[in-house]
Amino acid sequence: MSSLSGNLLVAQSGGPTPVINASLAGVIAEALNHEDEIVDILGGLNGIQGVLHEQLIDLAAESQQTLRNLEHTPGAALGTCRYKVKKAEDFDRILQVFEAHNIRFFHYIGGNDSQDTAAKIDALAKERGYELRVIGVPKTVDNDLPLTDHCPGFGSVAKHIAVTVREMSLDNAAMGQNDFVSILEVMGRNAGWLAASSVLAQRREKSDDNSKSASKNTHYSCSAPHIILLPEVPFNADNFIRRVEEVLKSNAHCFVVVSEGVQDEAGNYLGADTSSTDAFGHAVLGGAGEYLRSLVEDRFSGVKARSSKLGISQRAASHNASKTDVEEAKLCGREAVKAAVKGETGKMVILSRSGKEQYAVDTLLAPLVDIANGVKAFPEKWIGEDKMSIHQDFARYAQPLIQGELQLPYEQGLPRYAQLSAIRVQRKLEPYQTA
Amino acid sequence: MSSLSGNLLVAQSGGPTPVINASLAGVIAEALNHEDEIVDILGGLNGIQGVLHEQLIDLAAESQQTLRNLEHTPGAALGTCRYKVKKAEDFDRILQVFEAHNIRFFHYIGGNDSQDTAAKIDALAKERGYELRVIGVPKTVDNDLPLTDHCPGFGSVAKHIAVTVREMSLDNAAMGQNDFVSILEVMGRNAGWLAASSVLAQRREKSDDNSKSASKNTHYSCSAPHIILLPEVPFNADNFIRRVEEVLKSNAHCFVVVSEGVQDEAGNYLGADTSSTDAFGHAVLGGAGEYLRSLVEDRFSGVKARSSKLGISQRAASHNASKTDVEEAKLCGREAVKAAVKGETGKMVILSRSGKEQYAVDTLLAPLVDIANGVKAFPEKWIGEDKMSIHQDFARYAQPLIQGELQLPYEQGLPRYAQLSAIRVQRKLEPYQTA
Repeated sequence: MSSLSGNLLVAQSGGPTPVINASLAGVIAEALNHEDEIVDILGGLNGIQGVLHEQLIDLAAESQQTLRNLEHTPGAALGTCRYKVKKAEDFDRILQVFEAHNIRFFHYIGGNDSQDTAAKIDALAKERGYELRVIGVPKTVDNDLPLTDHCPGFGSVAKHIAVTVREMSLDNAAMGQNDFVSILEVMGRNAGWLAASSVLAQRREKSDDNSKSASKNTHYSCSAPHIILLPEVPFNADNFIRRVEEVLKSNAHCFVVVSEGVQDEAGNYLGADTSSTDAFGHAVLGGAGEYLRSLVEDRFSGVKARSSKLGISQRAASHNASKTDVEEAKLCGREAVKAAVKGETGKMVILSRSGKEQYAVDTLLAPLVDIANGVKAFPEKWIGEDKMSIHQDFARYAQPLIQGELQLPYEQGLPRYAQLSAIRVQRKLEPYQTA
Repeated sequence: MSSLSGNLLVAQSGGPTPVINASLAGVIAEALNHEDEIVDILGGLNGIQGVLHEQLIDLAAESQQTLRNLEHTPGAALGTCRYKVKKAEDFDRILQVFEAHNIRFFHYIGGNDSQDTAAKIDALAKERGYELRVIGVPKTVDNDLPLTDHCPGFGSVAKHIAVTVREMSLDNAAMGQNDFVSILEVMGRNAGWLAASSVLAQRREKSDDNSKSASKNTHYSCSAPHIILLPEVPFNADNFIRRVEEVLKSNAHCFVVVSEGVQDEAGNYLGADTSSTDAFGHAVLGGAGEYLRSLVEDRFSGVKARSSKLGISQRAASHNASKTDVEEAKLCGREAVKAAVKGETGKMVILSRSGKEQYAVDTLLAPLVDIANGVKAFPEKWIGEDKMSIHQDFARYAQPLIQGELQLPYEQGLPRYAQLSAIRVQRKLEPYQTA
């Protein structure tokens, strides 16, 4: 079984993360260790779309320097897509391309939609008797893949959000304005992991602090962020406004972190532009922060509110990446190749927390079909009783994931990021028309 | 004249910057060098408001470690205010507080509104025969103070914006979507310096690049950002849409940077909430990015647009500060104290570019009355012919200001920022009632 030899194909899919390229670097680095099994190391451009159109590049031709810089480069060096493979013809074409290029190892770095595609490719290859090893590499800033303890990409964006909240709250406090509401909208369509991670910005109150609201077993309610709104909790405007009022009684400003995916009790996204949907039919979000700003200013006279929306910048903020996350992302890439060479297929690498006293992770494998299209919601046990705060147990879970900083190379005041030479592999098939 | 001896008072005003605390650290460090002239080093809380209310703290009591961390701490450690001193009673009260605490050296770290206040205090002291040295320290992320080559605070936010645009554009490019418009809204109410600084993210095209639109003497029109909208240029929707169309012909995505202060030809802020104004009567802005997003999606079918708004986070992003900016901010604080001790008054420290081949700065003094309430608009000569691009001469001006990175101390995955002990100085006067 493990004597299979052929080419390796790696592709990236879905929204980029600060570490999706670290996983790519991990795949390439490990593939170079297996010359007996892996002949050429190919990259598919723009995810499965590039595979359909036979847009493949030679990754072994990239320089060592490019590979090193790739580990801290945002975006997705191969390009990604949101194309949903559905038609039987598409799957047939994928296998044709694989056969034409003798691809025997396939690694798809992506979230649940992508692992669903990978699972179907694996199943079809088995059905057709085409020997292929498919091992997925997890990726999502949303941290909502099932089975894995956490997802590469999450720690870095969590760190960026926590740093941003800490910094903004110092600015808010400095303004010396009473009755100021500061709102930060963060990513998270279906799951509140990223919004929750803002809790890491809270300062532990000193025990000699005489602040009225300080209490050791609460979730540091007097330090920003004061209110955290998750998509798991239906939004109730009256409860929200009441909580803002409470915070403003004991604190000059109130810091609110809101997930873009928060919905009201009727199931409408806050401030959503309902006219617009993406390729998967998801509603285009982004108005939650501005919605809350105007709600606050409408409901209170004399209260000022300002909103910020990190948008795409948060998932591209490699300058503020977590070293732990980068290393784990690379590890997942490496382990995917190792598993495939060993004969595994139809699985995704997952992270499992192994340390007792000290944080440590092991990698394991989980069936792709169990990952595909699943969503791990933020656990209810970590949501505070008021439904607008986060338990310290979550902070203990997330804390290790944001540890460590990269020392990026800078050039002219900006981080030096990698760009692939992207040397194309000769086409072997006729052009293909996607829907 | 230089034999004056008494206490020093320093205060901070207006919107915080990533380096307003570095200026404060500079004032404190330099004051400690002049024991013959400077007895106590006092801080006024929340700008001039704290002076009115006699809320003074003892800065010499802060630890050396706090002082060191202060240099890279965002916000404004003393607190700021946007209170506009207008009434004669207010100015009388300020002099009373100064007399009561034997304040002979006053340093106000702030923008044009604040230097206007400082100028009036200086004039009143002279009129009353109260010996006082008033030397302002420049501060504004907007870079719009007259006379100085640039303002402490600008370089760090310019760097953060350039890094953010570079990172977001890698994400945008990775998405492999055609006809995608990415919009980033940045600060800049009256002047476009910050929006313009996004031009630093543009990559110089390689000379062997065969890209259609590459041309050596243009402003790198094929690399993000593709469109930069400044408050100095009235917004014309048709011209904008035409330019977006042009960019999308040669590039898969179009990156737009828009200043919050952009107005249409009738003088209305784009997407402004006209119901809301701040203490100075300025309209509350913030809707320009979302306005452009919906404009683009309305005018083009099949074009997707997404907007991000850095908001307050950009002026608090000390984790991404420019080392050059931090050092210059500290220098301005130091030089203000030196000038006051030497007998100067009624002036502000300004930065003057002194290097020929290599960038270097000198400090000079300019009369406060010439700074007060002036605004240095972004120069017309640096705006491209199409009114939506920026000349390379500006990039040459701004490039040195974003150079260098700080090595911040981190603790639990987040930068360690300073918090003052803020030991209060005993009040000597009766409470005061502001309007």
